[in-house]
Order: sequence, then C-alpha cells, then structure tokens
Amino acid sequence: MDVLAAAQRLGEDIVRTPTLWSETLSDMLGAEIYLKFENLQFTASFKERGARNKLLLLTDDEAANGVVAMSAGNHAQGVARHAGLLGIPATIVMPEGTPNTKVEQTSRLGADVRLVGETLRESTAEAIALASRDGMLFVHPFDDPAVIAGQGTVSLEMLADAGPLDAILVPTGGGGLLAGIGLGVAALSDNPRLIGVQTSSYPAMADLFAERSSNRSAPATLAEGIAVREPGKMSAAIARRHAEQIVTVEESHIEDAIAMLLDIEKTVVEGAGAAGIAALLAHRNLVAGQRVGVVLTGGNIDTRLLTNVLMRRLGRDGRITALRILLTDRPGRLAAVAKVLGDAGANVIELSHHRMSSHVAATAAELDVVIETRGREHTEAVIAALRAAKIMVEFEDAEEE
Amino acid sequence: MDVLAAAQRLGEDIVRTPTLWSETLSDMLGAEIYLKFENLQFTASFKERGARNKLLLLTDDEAANGVVAMSAGNHAQGVARHAGLLGIPATIVMPEGTPNTKVEQTSRLGADVRLVGETLRESTAEAIALASRDGMLFVHPFDDPAVIAGQGTVSLEMLADAGPLDAILVPTGGGGLLAGIGLGVAALSDNPRLIGVQTSSYPAMADLFAERSSNRSAPATLAEGIAVREPGKMSAAIARRHAEQIVTVEESHIEDAIAMLLDIEKTVVEGAGAAGIAALLAHRNLVAGQRVGVVLTGGNIDTRLLTNVLMRRLGRDGRITALRILLTDRPGRLAAVAKVLGDAGANVIELSHHRMSSHVAATAAELDVVIETRGREHTEAVIAALRAAKIMVEFEDAEEE
Repeated sequence: MDVLAAAQRLGEDIVRTPTLWSETLSDMLGAEIYLKFENLQFTASFKERGARNKLLLLTDDEAANGVVAMSAGNHAQGVARHAGLLGIPATIVMPEGTPNTKVEQTSRLGADVRLVGETLRESTAEAIALASRDGMLFVHPFDDPAVIAGQGTVSLEMLADAGPLDAILVPTGGGGLLAGIGLGVAALSDNPRLIGVQTSSYPAMADLFAERSSNRSAPATLAEGIAVREPGKMSAAIARRHAEQIVTVEESHIEDAIAMLLDIEKTVVEGAGAAGIAALLAHRNLVAGQRVGVVLTGGNIDTRLLTNVLMRRLGRDGRITALRILLTDRPGRLAAVAKVLGDAGANVIELSHHRMSSHVAATAAELDVVIETRGREHTEAVIAALRAAKIMVEFEDAEEE
Repeated sequence: MDVLAAAQRLGEDIVRTPTLWSETLSDMLGAEIYLKFENLQFTASFKERGARNKLLLLTDDEAANGVVAMSAGNHAQGVARHAGLLGIPATIVMPEGTPNTKVEQTSRLGADVRLVGETLRESTAEAIALASRDGMLFVHPFDDPAVIAGQGTVSLEMLADAGPLDAILVPTGGGGLLAGIGLGVAALSDNPRLIGVQTSSYPAMADLFAERSSNRSAPATLAEGIAVREPGKMSAAIARRHAEQIVTVEESHIEDAIAMLLDIEKTVVEGAGAAGIAALLAHRNLVAGQRVGVVLTGGNIDTRLLTNVLMRRLGRDGRITALRILLTDRPGRLAAVAKVLGDAGANVIELSHHRMSSHVAATAAELDVVIETRGREHTEAVIAALRAAKIMVEFEDAEEE
C-alpha cells in the first residue's frame, strides 16, 4: 500500500487535476479553502487512480485473463477506461435498469457490460461468481490495498500544489479514498487532520468511528457515490488509524453545496463530490480560520437531477415562487391578475385555473401561478401590487420554511 | 498596446487560468482542442485583464478622481473588482431593470452602482456625461488600447501552456479580445490563425470583414457577452489586420456547446463563452485535424437560463417527452394509462386532463403527459407499451423536428 510508488506508477494517463484556492468560498465559509478538482479526470472522478494502480499491478496471467467489476457508477468507468488503455479485458456488471447513458459510456471505453441483478447486492454476487467461473480477477471498488494506494495519490498532489494544509475534508462511503489519503499523509511531519464526510442517510463509517451499531435503511440520496451500507474492512481499519473524525451532512447541505460550486466556482460536481463543502456549511467551526483542502471527488451528476437542484435553488432565492390566487368567478378577473403581473415585471411560468376546488365557494375560482422574478425583493413587490389591486393571494415563502 | 508589458503589469491579482487539452471534445470535433478556462477568473470572465491593465496605467490624478464604466455584465465586474483592489473609486452605470443579483455582485466589489437609462445606449450616454461632469475617466469596454493590450495576455498564457497552436477561436463582440490576441501573437514566427466567432444575431464584425453594410435589429441571444451592434473603431482596425476571418454560429449551436461543456468538461460557460465550441459544431472543416485553442471567455450565465438549456437538451436526448393521449371518457381509463406508464418505468413529471377541448369528441377526453425516461429507446418502449394497451398516443419527436 505504497502511495508514493502508486503516484510514480500511474503516469500521464491520470490527469494531474488542479488544486485551486477559492477566494469567495474562503470568505463565505471562514477558512482558507483549497479545492482539488478530481471532477476533471477523464471519467470525471478520482476512481481512475485506484483502478489504474490495481491494473498496473496485475501479473501477466491475470492481465491476460481480464478483470470483473460491479458498479453502475464511477468505479465502472475507472476500470473500463484503464483496462481499455492497458489492453486488459474488462467485464462490468451493472444492475438491471441502469440508465442507458451509463451503459453506453462504459461500453464506449471498451468494457463488456452485463446487466444482471436487481440490486447492487445481487449484481455484486453475480460479478464475483462470474469472476470465479471464468478465472477473472474481481476488482473491489474500495477494499483492496492497490485501490486504496491509488486513491491516496490525490493527497500528494494537493499538498504539492496548495502547500501545507491543516485539514483535508474527504467524502467517504466505502472508505477507499479516506484510507488512501490517510496513508498518503501519514509519513509527513506536519500532516493535516483528516475529516471524513458522510451523508446522514448513509453514516456507516461514522457509526463505526463512534462504535455505534449501524443498521439503517437505504433511502434515496443525492450523494450516490458515497451511499455505501458497509465500509471495507481494510479501508475502515486504516481510516480509523489515520482519520481524526467523521462528520455527517444533510441532503439539504449537499444540495446547497452543489449549487454553490456551480454558481461560484463554475464547476459541476455530483452529490458525493460536494460533500466536503457541505460539511463546511453544516459545521461552521469545524476548521475555522484554517487552511483546508477539499476533494471535489467527482462530477457525474444526472442532468435532470442537476436541473432539479438548480430550480429548487431559484425557489429558495425568491426567483421562482408559486402563488395561489382566489378570484371571484366573474369575467375579467383573470385579465386583471395578468395585467398586474405584467406591469410588475413578473414572468409567468405556469398557470392553472380551477373552478371546481372544494376549498373555494361556488362563486369563486382558484388560480395557481408560478412566477419568475428578479429576486426576493421583486417577488415581494409583485405580491404587494396584487394586494393593492384587491387580489387575494397566498404564497409559501421558501426561505421561512 | 504592448501585450507583453501588460502581462508583466497584471501580476497575481489576475488568475493564471488553466489551458487544458480535451480528449473527448478532440475526438468528437475532429481537432486537437485546447480550452482556456477564463470562466475561472474571480469574476468569471477575461474582462478583468483589460480593466486591470487600464487601471494600472492611470496617472495619480486620474486614479484619485476615479473611473466610470457602463455595463450590466462582465466589464462592470472587472472594473469594480480591480478598482476595489487598487483603491480607485469606481462608478458603474447599469440600465434600469438590471437583475438585483448583478447589482449586488458589483456593489459588493466596492463600486458605486447607479441604475440609469432604459437601454444600454441610454446608460452609456449617461455614463459618459457623468464622467465628464465629475471629472472621472470613462473606461470603454473594448475600444481602448490599454484594455485591448490587457485582453491580449490571454494568448500568451495559452501558447505557453498548450505549445504552438495552428488556430485560436475567439468569441467576438466589440472586438477587444480579438484585437488583443491579434497583437499578442503578431510577433511570433509561427503565429496561429485567428478566427473570430460571432452569433448570427449580432454579426457586426463579420459584416465589417465582408465589407457588407450592417444594420440589423437586436434580437434576444444566449450570447449577451458578444451582443454588440457596433464594434470598436480601434479594435476593428486591429482585428482586420491580424485575424483571418470571422465565422458566425446559430443560437442552437451555442446552446449545444453550453450543454456539452457542462456535460463533458464539467464547466459552466455563458453563451458568449461557448461560442468557440459552437463554431466547431457549426463549421466542421474549419480547423480539421489542427491544434486549436478555444477561449472559454466567461461563466456568468443566469441559473434559470442554464436550467432551460439543460431541460431542452433532455428533450432532444429523448429523456423528457410530451405525450398527448386521447381517452374515451369513461371511468378507469386514466388508471389504465397510469398503470402502463408505471409498469414501463416512465416517471410522470406533468399531467393535465381535459374534457372540454374542442378537438375531441364529446365522449372523449385529452390527457397531456410529460414523462421522463432513461433515454430515447426507453421512450419508444413506453409508447409501444401504451399502443399495445390500445391507448391512442401522439408525441413530438424532438430529434426529427
């Protein structure tokens, strides 16, 4: 598990991603923040490092027989990419129902993709069975010394580019990256504190650190990349030796962090990739005033999910607001509302008009309108204009929720 | 107009943005593509370079009296930022109705923002009047030798990082960046061809190169940053001397380029910033097989506009589809449709049910459904399942439009 050796081995086929100081985030979050842009790897995640290091350490026989991995995500693409570059046959097992785009992306890298199993658990069992049946090597996504050493190379580049750091925030699922970085910085004299970050939906490593039993359900999360129910044995043991603590963040923090990174840093991160910034939002005194490295682990977020995150952000910023208007049901009232909205500069995005609602009197109608404005103050001015025109309007203020 | 001197003058307060080779875009577009990430400047655009160079060349008296600029966009933020850093008073005139976020961003940088005039033309007149009345210097966004020299520093960094280039694609509005890069590369022995890129909505520089008269309307464009009706006299003269040609792109190319840069490069660019990649989409043989530098000039795109671009992309990819279903108007038919959609794995995003449409018989009803699927093939399977259940469905195939 030699991280330095891994760094020399990886070579130019792993992108030397930039580590950049963020002036704005540093100001906003009260620490000197250095971002490591692993979302700029070719397959948009750090997982390539571990995969490539593992593949480069295969014996000739193992390389000739090929490898198997189970993943519908970043590990799949990391293994497929570097197996392709190194001429090693790769089979990737993904659960049935995996989106076509992911299947296609992985196939295009040269892997043989098989859709087997309804859950990740079933697909893993299938991949292991396939490997043993066909004499191929199963590449674990995190509980493997070569994979761990490969992931650890992130830390060497961060420290070379940013200079000494007081702390590093590491999004944590199975623990491969956290363990790798732990080994990477362990030998330094002034080594940074390591803080793992998990979503509160999947806090398995946090539970392990706290010696709590962990037996939770598997809810939906924005941070699929760290949605791991059981950390690796080896990765967890190393993480416990080298990491100081694990903090958890809520989904809302992850959502805010994605939107902030897009808006301020002009960079696209997936949910797991935003966990480090989410931790700074959730725990304001965690690293106050310190020099802190934050690994943006990946950028593979579904476009539809990203638009949802951005639209919700517009709602919170008062840019998009849903209004419910009660109309006396007589001709001309809709025109009156439309005129006030137009004069006030509000842009109507959605509109529906109901006469049949049981919530209103038989002589009245309800109008649901979604408006877009220049911001919260403008929205308030629009509502005031409606009320000044004796129009009854209700709305939910997202900020006060 | 010494670009080298400007480069030495600017110093560390201008971000040395990365120039990175893009493997995927190179494969897709058939050229060796190097991207210059000027969207990673502090205010997310190259305009800081010209503004800072101009401000550093002021006399002590000029600096003490302060400067005025007119812009609701990137020039405003560039001037405000560096005037703030250099302790020079700055007044920024913006048109009335400028979104609050832009006003706030510029105020936060220390500028005195005034909302005057209904159009850019009126605001400009006001800014020039204000400057002359109060003895301040008006900083033109592009038709100024110091501004031009500052913008030109982009090219020195690109060539230092990418090595020799056969061509550089430069988004072009007023011509400041194109002229600056022209001067920047003019002294080189193996200087790259310069190709300006304009939106076909605002082709003033293209018209000038072609010696066509130019007197067009000012339609809406995604590429506000290059929506200039009249290029600068000085910038145009330099551009004509050093640039080979100007190409134009359609709005649809710009939209595709924004989505590609987000999806593939994980980076956020504004419409003008995407024009270089749009040119490669629109003109396939422009630089085939050559080493080409593309300046991603800025990243300030409104979140709502970005979500629109992404949603339209999902539509084109077959991920989101609007269906119109004709139902015989009797109980249970809606449930039948819902069951087929659910069983086929389609996610319903919007649904409305009309009985009153004059397009359908009195005994029938119309159902408008927007569904989300895993992609075009899945959408086709969903439609086939509806038809197999004897449900009449119409849809628009965005790809065939």
